[in-house]
Amino acid sequence: MHESATMPGVLAPVVTPFGADLEPDSGRLIAHCRWLARQGCGLAAFGTNSEANSLSVAERMTLLDELVAAGLDPGSMLPGTGTCALPDTVALTRHAVGHGVRGVLMLPPFYYKGVDDEGLYRGFSEVIERVGDDRLRIYLYHIPQLSGVPIGIDLIGRLCDAFPGIVAGMKDSSGEPANLARVLGAFPGFRLYAGTELLLTDNLRLGGVGCISATANINPGAIVEQYRHWQDDAGPGQQALDAVRRSVQRYPMIAALKHVIAHYRDDTEWRRLRPPLTSLAALDGAALIAELEAVQFRFRP
Amino acid sequence: MHESATMPGVLAPVVTPFGADLEPDSGRLIAHCRWLARQGCGLAAFGTNSEANSLSVAERMTLLDELVAAGLDPGSMLPGTGTCALPDTVALTRHAVGHGVRGVLMLPPFYYKGVDDEGLYRGFSEVIERVGDDRLRIYLYHIPQLSGVPIGIDLIGRLCDAFPGIVAGMKDSSGEPANLARVLGAFPGFRLYAGTELLLTDNLRLGGVGCISATANINPGAIVEQYRHWQDDAGPGQQALDAVRRSVQRYPMIAALKHVIAHYRDDTEWRRLRPPLTSLAALDGAALIAELEAVQFRFRP
Repeated sequence: MHESATMPGVLAPVVTPFGADLEPDSGRLIAHCRWLARQGCGLAAFGTNSEANSLSVAERMTLLDELVAAGLDPGSMLPGTGTCALPDTVALTRHAVGHGVRGVLMLPPFYYKGVDDEGLYRGFSEVIERVGDDRLRIYLYHIPQLSGVPIGIDLIGRLCDAFPGIVAGMKDSSGEPANLARVLGAFPGFRLYAGTELLLTDNLRLGGVGCISATANINPGAIVEQYRHWQDDAGPGQQALDAVRRSVQRYPMIAALKHVIAHYRDDTEWRRLRPPLTSLAALDGAALIAELEAVQFRFRP
Repeated sequence: MHESATMPGVLAPVVTPFGADLEPDSGRLIAHCRWLARQGCGLAAFGTNSEANSLSVAERMTLLDELVAAGLDPGSMLPGTGTCALPDTVALTRHAVGHGVRGVLMLPPFYYKGVDDEGLYRGFSEVIERVGDDRLRIYLYHIPQLSGVPIGIDLIGRLCDAFPGIVAGMKDSSGEPANLARVLGAFPGFRLYAGTELLLTDNLRLGGVGCISATANINPGAIVEQYRHWQDDAGPGQQALDAVRRSVQRYPMIAALKHVIAHYRDDTEWRRLRPPLTSLAALDGAALIAELEAVQFRFRP
């Protein structure tokens, strides 16, 4: 890990392009990551919006190898490594740490529901002990609407007590401002990312460290500027970010992001998703672009 | 596939024992499967109650290899092969079909929620085409309370039309008797298994083919006898099955099943679960055994 460098305040859960054979398209992925990095945006590859859970362990490892080989900075990376299965989570985490990534974003095992904190604690502990590397920095991933497995205050407390430094922060994708306040109230200094730029300013005001947001895939420059200027007027303003985000989130998120990228790069290949997810219908895509232009969205290729 | 042989009417989603190192214990698994098979119970290995989603793809393949090598009949097997990721589902399904299993039980990809039927249809279609083997028989797995991705009538209809014979049936773990009637009303001859023996007689009366039930791991003989004698009085009776099931399902299911097996086999190794799941607390275990004995439950080692 690069303790000395500055961790990005804004990260994109990088969308994953697929070829006609539904295999990941590493060329387009690398180009997209370079574009994000040039605008100061960190790379939370293999997140929800990366369709990471539609990828095999081997595919995820190969893509991370390729990103690093392409010269992208592991110090700006927070790849997702949490899966349903302990050995898969261990393998992905060990591999990512071996690349010197800044940290990993870790979903809880998400098939079984109603799992108690003791079970989740044992699961995370087992991963940490098996990876056995002091460089490991875990960002817990709280996204109950998809995982069905919330990460609550008691669990965070137990993990931080047992593994200080290692359990470094969290991405809170619940969308609840009250939860940001609750977590930061209980754990000052915990590196908390909001899961949407709608809560970027709120989170920074509360002591959080930024956001990891789907829409950073299409609007990275503006979000990064707002992050840098949240205390003055030199950024685009929270409202400008919100207008873009609200236009996009009316549609299925990943399909919408890929549609926007395909449209502004004039590259229909980008529209493809791996099943079970599907591309945006043409009419919806046209409506989305019209809405974005109505709010002065500017894609900066 | 063994079209001529009789498909078991009762299958157990076989619980998976783990060693102290949390690795699957194939010796105990084989012994348990032999015990189930001797009582006429089919093997739905790698189901929900098998903690299959806590296993890696390689672990699942190795265990299936070992079950077959131990002489267990692939014609009685319906292994679970559905995962979040298309390549994993294809690999597991191809591997199972290569072993000549009777069929596979296929979860839909279960991370993303609110997925439309078109996406699920494309997902299942892609698996079928990639596996590309006429021996493939898919049993769809409807368990919305855990997968978050229901399998509805429209989707079943599209799949049966496109892949007649291949899409052979379904396990309905919704627990709703009305859904059994709805599915069998729409698709007479569809091989529908209830997900609990509580609905065994109801399902058979409606034209379904049996049940795939967690509690078949501990009560296989009685459930199989009731399946064989549901139209006469020679079986134990639906009520006798219900009493056992209702005692067990007051507790976290997998932990409860393993506790019962450990207790009656006098083998505490059986009590272990892989995180994030945890063993039954001692007091709960004792209460469960007392409840089972109160309803004349008889484990038949």
